[in-house]
Amino acid sequence: MQDLTSVGIVTSQKVKFDNPLHLKSGAILDSYELVYETYGELNEDKSNAVLVCHALSSNHHVAGYYADDTKNIGWWDNMIGPGKAIDTGKFFVVAVNNLGGCHGSTGPTSINIETGKPYGADFPMVTVQDWTVTQVELADYLGIKQFAAIAGGSLGGMQALQWTLDFPDRVRHALVIAAAAKLTAQNIAFNDVARQAIITDPDFYGGDYHSHNTVPMRGLRLARMLGHITYLSDHSMAEKFGRELRNGPLGFGFDVEFEIESYLRYQGDKFADQFDANTYLLMTKALDYFDPAHDFNGNLREAFSAVKSDFLVLSFTTDWRFSPERSHAIVKALLDNELNVSYAEITSSYGHDSFLMGDRYYHELVKAYMNNIIV
Amino acid sequence: MQDLTSVGIVTSQKVKFDNPLHLKSGAILDSYELVYETYGELNEDKSNAVLVCHALSSNHHVAGYYADDTKNIGWWDNMIGPGKAIDTGKFFVVAVNNLGGCHGSTGPTSINIETGKPYGADFPMVTVQDWTVTQVELADYLGIKQFAAIAGGSLGGMQALQWTLDFPDRVRHALVIAAAAKLTAQNIAFNDVARQAIITDPDFYGGDYHSHNTVPMRGLRLARMLGHITYLSDHSMAEKFGRELRNGPLGFGFDVEFEIESYLRYQGDKFADQFDANTYLLMTKALDYFDPAHDFNGNLREAFSAVKSDFLVLSFTTDWRFSPERSHAIVKALLDNELNVSYAEITSSYGHDSFLMGDRYYHELVKAYMNNIIV
Repeated sequence: MQDLTSVGIVTSQKVKFDNPLHLKSGAILDSYELVYETYGELNEDKSNAVLVCHALSSNHHVAGYYADDTKNIGWWDNMIGPGKAIDTGKFFVVAVNNLGGCHGSTGPTSINIETGKPYGADFPMVTVQDWTVTQVELADYLGIKQFAAIAGGSLGGMQALQWTLDFPDRVRHALVIAAAAKLTAQNIAFNDVARQAIITDPDFYGGDYHSHNTVPMRGLRLARMLGHITYLSDHSMAEKFGRELRNGPLGFGFDVEFEIESYLRYQGDKFADQFDANTYLLMTKALDYFDPAHDFNGNLREAFSAVKSDFLVLSFTTDWRFSPERSHAIVKALLDNELNVSYAEITSSYGHDSFLMGDRYYHELVKAYMNNIIV
Repeated sequence: MQDLTSVGIVTSQKVKFDNPLHLKSGAILDSYELVYETYGELNEDKSNAVLVCHALSSNHHVAGYYADDTKNIGWWDNMIGPGKAIDTGKFFVVAVNNLGGCHGSTGPTSINIETGKPYGADFPMVTVQDWTVTQVELADYLGIKQFAAIAGGSLGGMQALQWTLDFPDRVRHALVIAAAAKLTAQNIAFNDVARQAIITDPDFYGGDYHSHNTVPMRGLRLARMLGHITYLSDHSMAEKFGRELRNGPLGFGFDVEFEIESYLRYQGDKFADQFDANTYLLMTKALDYFDPAHDFNGNLREAFSAVKSDFLVLSFTTDWRFSPERSHAIVKALLDNELNVSYAEITSSYGHDSFLMGDRYYHELVKAYMNNIIV
């Protein structure tokens, strides 16, 4: 039976921008492509557009499925569709693969026309600020002067926040979910271990692994295993895996013994097969660099002084990657600027990954907020 | 000026046991050596002996320094010495490098007399239970029928606990510090990522790196970097490193940028230079396997039913590797058996590493407890 709450078959589109892009790092891209998807219909006065921003390893395929790959369902399909929390009957949803990604937008795996080879490690560092600039270009191309809302979880939430800082007139509402105003030393530490795993993999070749017809699988696998520990809560791991042994008695060897080992290694292997190592490095650096208060002596209230948007900020009780306290800091700084902020700390056992889950209370909150947006 | 609270110059001793050791894994070691140090004097009725057990990567050099290496100070020197919390004026302290270690006791780097080569990956898996058995052999050799106390932090605390289970008549007091009655799925997950980093290092050669004149430095380094994240608290990292940049503005590259990266990479490099990879694998497995309640359907109270010792259990507020809740579980199970238990949760910002720190309140607690022990 057809799922009436799915946006159904979707197709990706691509657009090339030929105006030079001046990145925060100082590097310039003469041109670049963005791959994106849209769901729903843009209304006549173009007031119903919602931008969805993706997190570390995700992409523009946010809802629905492909005609030739019906099992490839968008990563936030539980949130977006007809009658869903972000209702495609009301909103025109735009989702884009970030610059530097490995799913179609220009990134390290793209061919550098100057050399005729993939950029690889030569692809410049990109920041959250750079992404919002490219997303503005896409908005202009689509004729969207102002987004009704920009939504994202984790690194996606950071992009939503950055929009309200850099383009306050172009976003009416920001949904900042499971995010933080900056990384802690511990967050950076985890990222650095992941990066070191990739960079010290002998198959990395300084990022030039394509020329050597290889991929730093070992490093990517370790990075993903480590990432997964931080995405899950101690509690959800305990619930899901406990100390369950996979095969009866202790093996007294280094093969998989505990269920959690099996899960992590599987996740690591799957990821290493699919994701580009240089892109992973770039995305983690974008996280490390995100710190809007930095230019304001660490004062987040001052950093937010030009913001005009309304906000829905959400956190999850067991998220220890970006804990509720991190959202509190955002909410406090927004309120200090007398902005309209709705905040909820959602009880969930799934840790950071909660933002991807279909918790009913969570989705009803988002739905109620989105329903109140006038388009 | 001489430090009158130091045990001063110490020397390591070695003893060989020729009776076959039947390990939990089923493997048998025909003979093995243990390296150990002692501080203070064993009294006439041999009632003042204290065994100190070491944690994951530590060893038998617990206090004092070597005549030819005066900067090599024992890892718990702040705790043990004349007039210190564990007073060598009162107690005879014994510290041993665990079987499977890489600091002198028989382990993967030792020569296997059957092959004439280092054991390497052929060294059998060892458990906390195996260690207590070998420590009993050492006690017998030293003429110690009963320890006044057995003390340890982290994996060392687990050994103290195991003694009270397996040899209830041979230990009067156990000091179980920053420990847990078993690892969580998350603890195991961190260990497995560390192991996978080592095992997938091309220089590991299935554990036979000695034959290839190499060492899996990359893997060991990653394992240690990751370990350090779990030893420190988010708070102590924030205090110590914050988001401080090491060299002025953002570098937009993958060299060290943040102080925390510099610290972790330094710790990783240092460790990879010194520690044996096969030993690291064994020690993490000993941690994973530790679960005294396992044979009692997970019932810790029942597991402790034969215990006779008194206890000092200590935890630290910011320890997220083995959080205070983990100590509470131990204390509860001990109290359910109507044992004498002193418990304190010590306010400390140093995370799991707190057990190594010289916090005054912590040391005064240990001192008070040790002073009350009748010898």
